[in-house]
Amino acid sequence: MSKTMAINAGSSSLKFQIIEMPEETVISKGLVERIGLAEGNLEIKYTDAEGQSQKFTLTEEIADHSRAVELLLSNLLELGIIQDFEEIKGVGHRVVAGGEIYKESTLVNEELIKNVEDLAEFAPLHNPAEAVVMRVFQEKLPHATMAAVFDTSFHTTMPAENYLYSLPYEFYENYSVRKYGAHGTSHQFVAHRAAEIVGKPIEDLRIITCHLGNGASITAVKNGESIDTSMGFTPLAGVTMGTRTGDIDASVIPFIMEKEGISDINEVINIFNKKSGLLGLSGVSSDMRDVEEAAEAGNERAQTALDIFYNRVIKYVGQYVAIMNGVDVVVFTAGIGENSKETREIVMKNFEYMGVKIDSERNNTRDEAIISTDDSTVTVINIPTNEEIAIARDVERLKAN
Amino acid sequence: MSKTMAINAGSSSLKFQIIEMPEETVISKGLVERIGLAEGNLEIKYTDAEGQSQKFTLTEEIADHSRAVELLLSNLLELGIIQDFEEIKGVGHRVVAGGEIYKESTLVNEELIKNVEDLAEFAPLHNPAEAVVMRVFQEKLPHATMAAVFDTSFHTTMPAENYLYSLPYEFYENYSVRKYGAHGTSHQFVAHRAAEIVGKPIEDLRIITCHLGNGASITAVKNGESIDTSMGFTPLAGVTMGTRTGDIDASVIPFIMEKEGISDINEVINIFNKKSGLLGLSGVSSDMRDVEEAAEAGNERAQTALDIFYNRVIKYVGQYVAIMNGVDVVVFTAGIGENSKETREIVMKNFEYMGVKIDSERNNTRDEAIISTDDSTVTVINIPTNEEIAIARDVERLKAN
Repeated sequence: MSKTMAINAGSSSLKFQIIEMPEETVISKGLVERIGLAEGNLEIKYTDAEGQSQKFTLTEEIADHSRAVELLLSNLLELGIIQDFEEIKGVGHRVVAGGEIYKESTLVNEELIKNVEDLAEFAPLHNPAEAVVMRVFQEKLPHATMAAVFDTSFHTTMPAENYLYSLPYEFYENYSVRKYGAHGTSHQFVAHRAAEIVGKPIEDLRIITCHLGNGASITAVKNGESIDTSMGFTPLAGVTMGTRTGDIDASVIPFIMEKEGISDINEVINIFNKKSGLLGLSGVSSDMRDVEEAAEAGNERAQTALDIFYNRVIKYVGQYVAIMNGVDVVVFTAGIGENSKETREIVMKNFEYMGVKIDSERNNTRDEAIISTDDSTVTVINIPTNEEIAIARDVERLKAN
Repeated sequence: MSKTMAINAGSSSLKFQIIEMPEETVISKGLVERIGLAEGNLEIKYTDAEGQSQKFTLTEEIADHSRAVELLLSNLLELGIIQDFEEIKGVGHRVVAGGEIYKESTLVNEELIKNVEDLAEFAPLHNPAEAVVMRVFQEKLPHATMAAVFDTSFHTTMPAENYLYSLPYEFYENYSVRKYGAHGTSHQFVAHRAAEIVGKPIEDLRIITCHLGNGASITAVKNGESIDTSMGFTPLAGVTMGTRTGDIDASVIPFIMEKEGISDINEVINIFNKKSGLLGLSGVSSDMRDVEEAAEAGNERAQTALDIFYNRVIKYVGQYVAIMNGVDVVVFTAGIGENSKETREIVMKNFEYMGVKIDSERNNTRDEAIISTDDSTVTVINIPTNEEIAIARDVERLKAN
């Protein structure tokens, strides 16, 4: 039994879990928020010596990610969640952009950290923070096995016909402009779990994984490898999301700049990332549950937002059925995928033509379950994703090597 | 028997056909090119009194579209193609952008011309020229029935879930930012012809029409109506084209502007429209035939360009199968669609999972033909498109009313 930390650093946040391995028991989790702002927050959930669930919170200025890590580690000691840093045998860091370099999870060393910094142009808000966090963990827990788990690794198997844009080829050669995708850890996790559930080697299956959360992406998995995914050069592309527009005619941008008197294109990209999607369409909220509620109460724009969200998911599932010349398993996961039975039912209804049948009773679940009927030509499965467990497993695997 | 002209005015060109109706016999066709440049061209093909095919050409400065129309009409008289302007009983004008106003072909009057001018922001290079051309024809041929045939009309039946982008809703309300599509006349023409060929009412069919030319778009036709199409707010979106990129992650734009030191977004949009697609990927040509030839000679980038073109068509057909919950008929048309049997075979191979079977011998054609086997679950048809005939038919129909 040993403790592994799974770390997920964002531009102004740091989420963590401490997981007993190989049992995969989460013994503590929490986050540091509002890093760099006047009032930062630390929150740690854990179970105390008497077996009671506890929540520790602290509010103070947390200047940077370095301070965030120090504060987290010292409080883990003080709260008695760990007795000694030596107990933590492994740390797995989620890294957003691994470019074309990192095709799998990799042990952290100075070269890797430098590469993560160099890849910052592909994830300007995330990679620099992640590099800092890796450095501080190296300093504080030099004994631990430390791995970087890249959001993009799983998608590095995509063939050129799917990752290349129809741009002048020089943009790829000179600037590495291509599709990278995201959510790789989640897509890989649920695809492998799906193969276990249907009891077949993943190499023999054509799987479509729908990771539908506030951020959403859909992946085509063939022979156990990602061959295409809906997010693109950045997470902006693909299906309609909580606040992101997904696919759009690029010509809209200069038109909007002209109409709104915007001179900096980054302002428009910011609107596309933060004020669009379910939020922009509904005018209500970026949260699917709020939009569903508003639609039920008769808000037409909310209903349109839902219809568009379903529609875009149907279109991506449809195109991935086509590129794989059929599909054996469709997986739904993440916040919306796991919890919205309506989404699953409405999306899969459009594949009745190929013999897909959803069992309404089986579909009435938020847990892991096959939700298609026994005679459905495609097995449809609800699988809660768990990126932290996936990260911890990768650390274990690299520790064993 | 009466003569109808079909007019297609571009930013610096004007194409025409003179068609005997209702026989649909083309008696003359040609174009004016390089309007506004130092050396303009006029070319008129026709059959002379002895039944010989003739080609008349003339090179001189053609200052504007008004002059282009005058030059064309006076030469039609001089060449004896018409004896008198009175012979021309109808003129149909192709108009690129009809916005949300024009849901069908409409008789030209002052209000329509004003509206076409007002819609110029959706087609800045086309609509203004088309308005000028309509005015000059009104002046020269005041007796003729004159109709505007909009490239967008057929797509005005799309439901909101397909025409709305996942943007702040205000962009639609205030600026009419939405999907308009294009090639509507062609999609409508071949969809109706397909229904005739299979001998069923179009209302009972789910049809996917693939208009694949230098510009390319794919449309889902249900109950005889366009319910979705791959081009978007402008013709930039959708599948890979001769020089257009089709769908792309919008975040690529600021990245490229930064890398290339471009400050004006319109420069990038221009690259996306004119230097991308088959041309940008292959580095060889925007013409499918050249790219196919280069690929056959071992040029890898040309092969990649072809693979990407096929791939994007497969993806759109796949998503339209999904939104219609199946498909009855797939149509290929336009330059590539009609002439590249490889494209048709490679695209449809990915739909074997649903029982599509192409008959290689039947597919070895450039003419109208069913190219699927008799036991194929989906009827696949090659149909040469004819936008000029479609325009002339609309003029006839409006004349009769």
